[in-house]
Amino acid sequence: MQVKALPGFREFYPEETALRNHIFSAWRTVAARYAFEEYDGPPLEPLELYTQKSGNEIVGQLYEFTDKGERRVALRPEMTPTLARMVAAQAQALKKPIRWFAIPQLFRYERQQRGRLREHFQLNMDVIGEPGPLADAEVIAAAIDIQRTLGLTAADVRVRVSDRRVLQCLLLNAGVAEADLAATYGAVDKIERAPRIEEIVAEALVHTASPGPVAARVLEIARLRDRGSLERVLSATRGGPEAAEGLFSCLDALQAMGLGEFLEVDLSIVRGLAYYTGIVFELFDAQRTLRAICGGGRYDGLLKALGGVDLPAVGFGMGDVVLGELLKSRPVGGAPPRMLDAFLVAVTMEDQGAVLALAHALRDQGLSVEFALKEQAVARQLKIAASRTAQRAVVIGPEERKQGVVVVRDMGTGTEERVALASVADHLAGT
Amino acid sequence: MQVKALPGFREFYPEETALRNHIFSAWRTVAARYAFEEYDGPPLEPLELYTQKSGNEIVGQLYEFTDKGERRVALRPEMTPTLARMVAAQAQALKKPIRWFAIPQLFRYERQQRGRLREHFQLNMDVIGEPGPLADAEVIAAAIDIQRTLGLTAADVRVRVSDRRVLQCLLLNAGVAEADLAATYGAVDKIERAPRIEEIVAEALVHTASPGPVAARVLEIARLRDRGSLERVLSATRGGPEAAEGLFSCLDALQAMGLGEFLEVDLSIVRGLAYYTGIVFELFDAQRTLRAICGGGRYDGLLKALGGVDLPAVGFGMGDVVLGELLKSRPVGGAPPRMLDAFLVAVTMEDQGAVLALAHALRDQGLSVEFALKEQAVARQLKIAASRTAQRAVVIGPEERKQGVVVVRDMGTGTEERVALASVADHLAGT
Repeated sequence: MQVKALPGFREFYPEETALRNHIFSAWRTVAARYAFEEYDGPPLEPLELYTQKSGNEIVGQLYEFTDKGERRVALRPEMTPTLARMVAAQAQALKKPIRWFAIPQLFRYERQQRGRLREHFQLNMDVIGEPGPLADAEVIAAAIDIQRTLGLTAADVRVRVSDRRVLQCLLLNAGVAEADLAATYGAVDKIERAPRIEEIVAEALVHTASPGPVAARVLEIARLRDRGSLERVLSATRGGPEAAEGLFSCLDALQAMGLGEFLEVDLSIVRGLAYYTGIVFELFDAQRTLRAICGGGRYDGLLKALGGVDLPAVGFGMGDVVLGELLKSRPVGGAPPRMLDAFLVAVTMEDQGAVLALAHALRDQGLSVEFALKEQAVARQLKIAASRTAQRAVVIGPEERKQGVVVVRDMGTGTEERVALASVADHLAGT
Repeated sequence: MQVKALPGFREFYPEETALRNHIFSAWRTVAARYAFEEYDGPPLEPLELYTQKSGNEIVGQLYEFTDKGERRVALRPEMTPTLARMVAAQAQALKKPIRWFAIPQLFRYERQQRGRLREHFQLNMDVIGEPGPLADAEVIAAAIDIQRTLGLTAADVRVRVSDRRVLQCLLLNAGVAEADLAATYGAVDKIERAPRIEEIVAEALVHTASPGPVAARVLEIARLRDRGSLERVLSATRGGPEAAEGLFSCLDALQAMGLGEFLEVDLSIVRGLAYYTGIVFELFDAQRTLRAICGGGRYDGLLKALGGVDLPAVGFGMGDVVLGELLKSRPVGGAPPRMLDAFLVAVTMEDQGAVLALAHALRDQGLSVEFALKEQAVARQLKIAASRTAQRAVVIGPEERKQGVVVVRDMGTGTEERVALASVADHLAGT
C-alpha cells in the first residue's frame, strides 16, 4: 500500500532537481557577483512571528499547529519576519548596508486553491540600511541579471517599475482624499484583471465629492506607460518632480548599467502589501502569459514595525515555479545535461582491481566516473555505458594491464585509441 | 517585542551559511564524481508514511499535526520512506542500479532532549537495484572521499565496518539462540557506552542455558578489531568463510581504490535499525570525541516492506552537524573566505555613471563587485572597501574618465596602477 505525497507538494526526480539546481545556481551566481551573502532561518517558526506582521487573518493560510511543548508554530510562509529578527539581533555588529540573500522553501495552506502548489522555493534578496535609489537599482539589476544568466533577454522578460511616492503625489493631486489612498491603491492593483475598473476605482473614493471624474484621472495616471509622458504629467503637478527623484535616479542607474531595455514605467504596479514605501516592481514574462516571476520594493518602516531595528530596506522575492515554467517554454531551456565523463569496463574479473584503482584516481581528479557493479560481459558493460550517456568507455583487460595502457572508446563516434594508464585523466579531461 | 526562534532550530548567519554551503558543496562534488543524481521530496508528508515503517512509537518523536484538510501529517524525520515511494512509482522506467542522493532537512521533536537540535541537514546516498559488495564499496568510498574533499585524512576520520551476515553466523556458532539474535545485537550495540556490558549481553540470552560463557564469547567476537584475527575466527567457524564473502569483497574493493587506511573492521557496529541485512558501517572522527559523522548499510528488504518494489539497496545518511563541528576543530577549517574582487570608487558624483557601467560589465564577467550606494568622500569609500575585504579598489574620477583609464589599488599592499578601462576585467581576473 503506497502512501502518496500530500496535495500541493512536489517530488523532485533527478530531472526536476536538475532544473531546480540550475535556477538556484543562477541565483547564487548573480548574488555573488553583486556581493550578497547567503543566510537562512528555521522553516518552522512561532506563529506569532507572522501574526504580529499580518494579523490573525493569516492564520487561515498557514500550516500551523501546536507542538508537543504547547507552542503555537507555523511553517514559514515568507522570509521577511525571520530576516527582521536576525538583523535586529546583530544590528550593531553587522556592517551596513547589509546585502543578504536566502533561498527558503515557503509554505501556504490555502483551502480554496485546489490543485495549486502549497510550497515553493523563493530567492529573497535585500539591501538593508541604505535609503537611496542606488540600493533600489542594485536589487532590480540583480533580478534582471538572473534572467540574463539563465539565457533570457528583454524579448523574454520585462521589469515594471512604480514608486509609491510618485503614485501618492499624483493621486492626491488628482483629487483622491488622503483617507482613500489605500483603497485606491487596491483598486488600481486590479486594473489588468477586473472588468468595469472605472466603477471599482470610483467605489474606493468614498471621501471624494465627485468620484467619477477623479476615477477617470486616476486611471489615466495608472495607464501611463512611458517615462516621457510621466515626466510631463509630473512637471505639471505640485511636488511632482520632487516625488519622482528617487524613481528617476533608480531608472537612470539601471540605464547606466546597460539594462534600460528591460524597464517599463508602470504606476499600476501597486503590490498588495501595505508596507511598501517607495519603489515597487514586478518582473514578468514579456508576453504576459504567466504570473509574476518576481516582485519587490522598498519597505523602510517594516523592520522597525516587526519589533526590530529602524533601518530602511529594499528587496524582492523570486519564486522557482514561474521561472521554471518560463525556462521550459524557451529554447534556452532548462538545466545542462548530466555529464558522465567515463564508464570503466573490466574485460575479466581479474581486471576489476585495476578498474577500481583507475576509477578512484579519475574521481580524485574531479571526473564523473561509473563502472559495472557486478561481473558482466564487455558488450553488456558497453550497453550500460551508453544508457548512462557516458562520453567515453575506458576498457581494461589482461593485455592492457600488462602494457600499462587502457583502451578509450568514444561513445559518440565509436573510435578507439590506446592511452597510457598514467595519462588517462589528462586525456579524458583534455577533450 | 522580539519573537525568538524555536528551541532546537538554527539561524544561519552568513558565516554559518558559508560553512553549511562548504559541506553541501563537498557532498555534491563527490556525488557527481560517483555519478549519483540528486532528488528531493516534500518536507511535509502523511504521518502514515513513517508509522508504517517504524510503528506508532515514532509519533512521539515527530513534529506531527492534523492539517486544515484533516490529514495527519509530519515533518520528515528521515528520507528513506520518501525515496522508497519515489522509486516504486517509477520502478519500471528508472535504469538500475539507481544511484541517487538528496540533502533533506530532517526534523525530530524529542521532548527529553532539551538544548539539542531538532533539525539537521542530512546527505542521503543510496545505490538501489544491486545486491553485490561493489555497491557497498561505492557508497563507503563516497563517504570517505567527502571527508578527503573537505581536507580530512585517515588521521582525522575512520570508517568502522561490520556485516550482519558475519555477526549472525559468529553469534549462532558461539551459542546464541536464533530467538535471541535481535536482543544480542542490541546488547552488542552498547559495548562502548555501557558499564557491566557482560551482564547486559548475558541478559539478552534468555533462550540460552549457560548465558555467562556465551556472553564472554559474544564479547570476544564484538571486540575483534583487525581483519587477520577475524579471518582466523571465521575459518574455524562453520559457514564462516561464506558468510564473510561480501564483507571481504567490499573491503578488498576499498583497498583497491586506495582507501584501506580509513578502514577498521568492527563487528560491534550494529546500528539500531532492524532493517539492515548485510554490510553496516559508521564513520567517526579518529579521536572518537564526537558522535558518528555518518552511518549506513545494506537494507535489501526495506523498499518492499515500505510498500514499494522488491529491490536490494545500500546507502548512508551523513549529517551536517557533527561534520561541521569536526571541521571547525581542525586546521583545514571551514569555508573558504568570502571574496570581493573589487570595490569601485567614484571620485565625484559625475563619475557615478561610469562606476555603474563598469560594475555591471565586471559582474557580467563573473567578478564580485560592490560600490558605495550613496555619495561619499573617496577616503570613506576606501574605508568601506577595506571593511568589505575587497581585494582591490578601482577608482574613477573626471581625469580618468577623460583618459579612458581607472586606478586599480591593491588593498593589501596599497600599490596603485593605471589600467585601461577596456581591460579592467582581464586585469582583475588575471591576478
